Amino acid sequence: MEFLARQSRLFCPFLNKTSPATLRALSASPAAANGVSNLQVAARECPVMGAAMAVQSSRSYATSTKPLHFEQSSQAMANETSIDSVHAKAGVFDTSKGICKHGLAVMKAAQGVTGEAAEKEAPIKTASYPMKLQSNTFNYEDFYQAELTKKHKDKSYRYFNNINRLAKEFPKAHTASEVERVTVWCSNDYLGMSKNKEVLKTMRNTLEVYGAGAGGTRNIAGHNRHAVELEAALADLHSKESALVFSSCYVANDATLSTLGSKLPDCVIFSDQLNHASMIQGIRHSGARKVVFKHNDLVDLENKLKSLPIEVPKIIAFESVYSMCGSIAPIEEICDLADKYGAITFLDEVHAVGMYGPRGAGVAEHLDFEAHASGRPENTVMSRVDIITGTLGKAYGCVGGYIAGSAKFVDMIRSLAPGFIFTTSLPPSIMAGANTAIEYQKTTIQDRAAQQLNTRYVKAKLAELDIPVVPNPSHIVPVLVGDAETAKIASDMLLDRFNIYVQAINYPTVPVGEERLRVTPTPGHGAKLADNLVNALETVWTELGIKRVKDWEAVGGLAGVGVKGAKPVHPIWTDAQLSLTPVTGVQADKVVVEKETISAIPIEAAA
Amino acid sequence: MEFLARQSRLFCPFLNKTSPATLRALSASPAAANGVSNLQVAARECPVMGAAMAVQSSRSYATSTKPLHFEQSSQAMANETSIDSVHAKAGVFDTSKGICKHGLAVMKAAQGVTGEAAEKEAPIKTASYPMKLQSNTFNYEDFYQAELTKKHKDKSYRYFNNINRLAKEFPKAHTASEVERVTVWCSNDYLGMSKNKEVLKTMRNTLEVYGAGAGGTRNIAGHNRHAVELEAALADLHSKESALVFSSCYVANDATLSTLGSKLPDCVIFSDQLNHASMIQGIRHSGARKVVFKHNDLVDLENKLKSLPIEVPKIIAFESVYSMCGSIAPIEEICDLADKYGAITFLDEVHAVGMYGPRGAGVAEHLDFEAHASGRPENTVMSRVDIITGTLGKAYGCVGGYIAGSAKFVDMIRSLAPGFIFTTSLPPSIMAGANTAIEYQKTTIQDRAAQQLNTRYVKAKLAELDIPVVPNPSHIVPVLVGDAETAKIASDMLLDRFNIYVQAINYPTVPVGEERLRVTPTPGHGAKLADNLVNALETVWTELGIKRVKDWEAVGGLAGVGVKGAKPVHPIWTDAQLSLTPVTGVQADKVVVEKETISAIPIEAAA
Repeated sequence: MEFLARQSRLFCPFLNKTSPATLRALSASPAAANGVSNLQVAARECPVMGAAMAVQSSRSYATSTKPLHFEQSSQAMANETSIDSVHAKAGVFDTSKGICKHGLAVMKAAQGVTGEAAEKEAPIKTASYPMKLQSNTFNYEDFYQAELTKKHKDKSYRYFNNINRLAKEFPKAHTASEVERVTVWCSNDYLGMSKNKEVLKTMRNTLEVYGAGAGGTRNIAGHNRHAVELEAALADLHSKESALVFSSCYVANDATLSTLGSKLPDCVIFSDQLNHASMIQGIRHSGARKVVFKHNDLVDLENKLKSLPIEVPKIIAFESVYSMCGSIAPIEEICDLADKYGAITFLDEVHAVGMYGPRGAGVAEHLDFEAHASGRPENTVMSRVDIITGTLGKAYGCVGGYIAGSAKFVDMIRSLAPGFIFTTSLPPSIMAGANTAIEYQKTTIQDRAAQQLNTRYVKAKLAELDIPVVPNPSHIVPVLVGDAETAKIASDMLLDRFNIYVQAINYPTVPVGEERLRVTPTPGHGAKLADNLVNALETVWTELGIKRVKDWEAVGGLAGVGVKGAKPVHPIWTDAQLSLTPVTGVQADKVVVEKETISAIPIEAAA
Repeated sequence: MEFLARQSRLFCPFLNKTSPATLRALSASPAAANGVSNLQVAARECPVMGAAMAVQSSRSYATSTKPLHFEQSSQAMANETSIDSVHAKAGVFDTSKGICKHGLAVMKAAQGVTGEAAEKEAPIKTASYPMKLQSNTFNYEDFYQAELTKKHKDKSYRYFNNINRLAKEFPKAHTASEVERVTVWCSNDYLGMSKNKEVLKTMRNTLEVYGAGAGGTRNIAGHNRHAVELEAALADLHSKESALVFSSCYVANDATLSTLGSKLPDCVIFSDQLNHASMIQGIRHSGARKVVFKHNDLVDLENKLKSLPIEVPKIIAFESVYSMCGSIAPIEEICDLADKYGAITFLDEVHAVGMYGPRGAGVAEHLDFEAHASGRPENTVMSRVDIITGTLGKAYGCVGGYIAGSAKFVDMIRSLAPGFIFTTSLPPSIMAGANTAIEYQKTTIQDRAAQQLNTRYVKAKLAELDIPVVPNPSHIVPVLVGDAETAKIASDMLLDRFNIYVQAINYPTVPVGEERLRVTPTPGHGAKLADNLVNALETVWTELGIKRVKDWEAVGGLAGVGVKGAKPVHPIWTDAQLSLTPVTGVQADKVVVEKETISAIPIEAAA
């Protein structure tokens, strides 16, 4: 093995730079049969191994595949032989050539397989299902393979990273190896509520008393105090008459839009161009006519609204914070248009609940910040929105989704939406935990203010280095890369070399050519971690030659980056609003340092 | 108040039979503003109060509605005045008539409102949202109301019962009142795994280490060891190459069928007439051609399959155990047809996983019981099924759903299904708990054997009393009522008078005229509880004059009940298979008594 490893180093820049100890750590995995080790992640970067593994992966997807009836004595051998045989069978590489031997050598060395064993060819038995293909029948497996090949070819095939976020070391996680630590910079647990002590206490107690699962649909044995109390808390949060909880906000959006759109006679749904997949699916499933308007473009929306008779039922479906670019909708102006043209508004606040407004109700609440902070005002932007949807799985740290609106509207969805009716309720502990998180965030703005300050810090530091961030007024830091393969390599470099996890966001989540690293600071990401991230990004940008802001300027700009004469974008959390927190009136730089001190203490203690 | 209560007793049979203490207990509710008290449940039985409450309910759905800006000093007043005003406004009842006063008196007495206060009319303020209706704009609220009115008229409007299943008192639950106990006889927590100590221990530990929520989608920070390990366990359970976890099996079925059906070129989906809503939605969303075949009818299925060219891709979508009638599909014969006509099979084992087969993999495994019990056989019925879907929320006691199949198939769904890609992962504690439940049930058949024995006991006792049960070979006990209103009244009587909770199942879950009480015994429902249930059903059947088997015989039979010359139906769990448990070879009656002794000890200790 030593000899092979030495040989490989001669022509492998990765092996050349990596110590044997690191290789061993990278390859350690508690679920070696099914997990993806970090070495495999690294290997995917390699033009030799990456291509071979793509072929292998399309044959048997590693993270969820249990190879059947392989009769090798060790799993390591199974993995290895599998790759080898792919090379041979697929004809991608000739195993007699050094370049392929090299790739295998990397895997073998890291898996601790001896050189001798590694040289042997183990026999392979594939799963022996009864053959049922007759002549002329459709070949389903070939079809699945063809679909996967398409994904590989257009670089949209996704490799999942095994990331285990640690409640007591937030925002750190271990990888497939329990001893390795990475800092997670892309979670949607924006406020760290998934490790909040009050939330965990509630969940523990609820588990103890009410057990693991609800045991039924809401109609049959699955309706309980937790559902009643959570829905009351959500109705109160958004100052609506009613709320209804779903398995997820994907389901909430899909079920609500499809039910509403199919029931309202001749309904037309106006959908923002950047709406989330769940809304797009819901609209499609409704069968209603769909009119897409340009992202956040009031003129385009109005032109389209006015083309229809006033009496036609219309839904304007949009989001408050758009997840991948961080833009924020002109909610009030959209409500004006809805009133003018007889439409109702459907607002997805998934990335905003817990994060904006004095009680965390979202951007609609934030727009009347002071009024909401001092009482329960009427005639607000929030009260003008007809339907608000949100999640319990991001800033509230749990899982699940919901809608809030008028009593009749919610009761109709409750009564008619199959996606609500025919599914098991969320577990009592989840509903109770989410309820605690909501109530907790209703009474403090400290976490979301700290999150905003840390966001400002990261954005400011990146700006200093001319590293491009899609300008936006929200808590999202979309770092523009502009190429799918480079984004993946950059993400892998951050993980492998800097122990920083930021997932690359590629098509279809963002348009081709606008690939990015989506960074999400939390109250736990203070100046030290932020500096680490910024320094790592600087190295990655330099080594990979990724475009800076000035480079985007030179080509006319992209996604708001490097656009000459563009208006400056100001954060929606104003300095005055941030000054309501204990850490007042100081510069972002200073504040973050203070916040880091605070976040070293458990956040719940500081609040 | 005393006076009013006494007056009411003169003409109210309910008040006449109920002590003041019971009334107080019935009306106690920890969430009075939003919960439904048992007195309200009882009131719905009353022809006076029931009708009035239906009107009220359609105005403001009680369990999830937070009345806004009511300015009464007490919530009791708000409720009461709300009902009063419904009477007046809706014109259903004249409050000046004694009959309506009586209804109110029941509510008032139970809520502890003094007679004096109850006489006063409190002013009502409704929520004051800005009016935005112009002339001619669509009236959305009226439309919602009209949809709700339809549900009330056809008796399909659903009232949720507040049922809080207690882990330490399984199968008992408390209602809206924490001190009241009811025995739950309709949960899908078939094996009581939601209170299994090993499951709860895993969940507690996972919560402690990994926190409340996953924090992201599987692609972005939400992929972890729990997902990897759970999917490996599921692939192993079904002896498939791969598995993939979803938010629920509703989502798994919907996402998988819609993706597969839309991708396979010119695909035709053959769907059993009784398929679950999630499959119906998935097929609809796929846009593929759908051919419905008669329930479990191989001749009809074959005739429809043979009408298409062999090369056309076809999916046969069906279930193993049909939830509402308990019938079981001829899986092997359907696989034969699939082979013959070039189709793939999509089998929903939602009500069977954990419940059938030596390792709990479902009916497909059960069909080769002995082979699976003694090893990992090849060429089984289970291996012939292409796609198996299941749930983690019924016999496994948690929440979530999954698919299992070939590696390429699963990887394609993983790569293409929006319902999988764009949603937050299940929480680590849920995935870990479900994994523990699966592994636990892989190694013991005791729980599912006990469940089957208790099912046999209940079915036998009901047969002795001529109370009609839809004949079936599975663990479901569908007690036929045959009328929506009667089913609801029977369910309410069981709850109010016997502290037994069995939800009425009405249209659209079952066909009109086939309404039923769906009873689901568990290993925890021993002879004593079963006898209580059977005696209560006997009383209800007698008092309400519900049809017995002989009555159905007289009208030619319905839903398999009272059908002359029908073949006897034998349980799929044979005596021989049940004899593999420690409680062997004795009659059901005897066995259940023994099981009750066992289930008095925690089941996990006995196993």
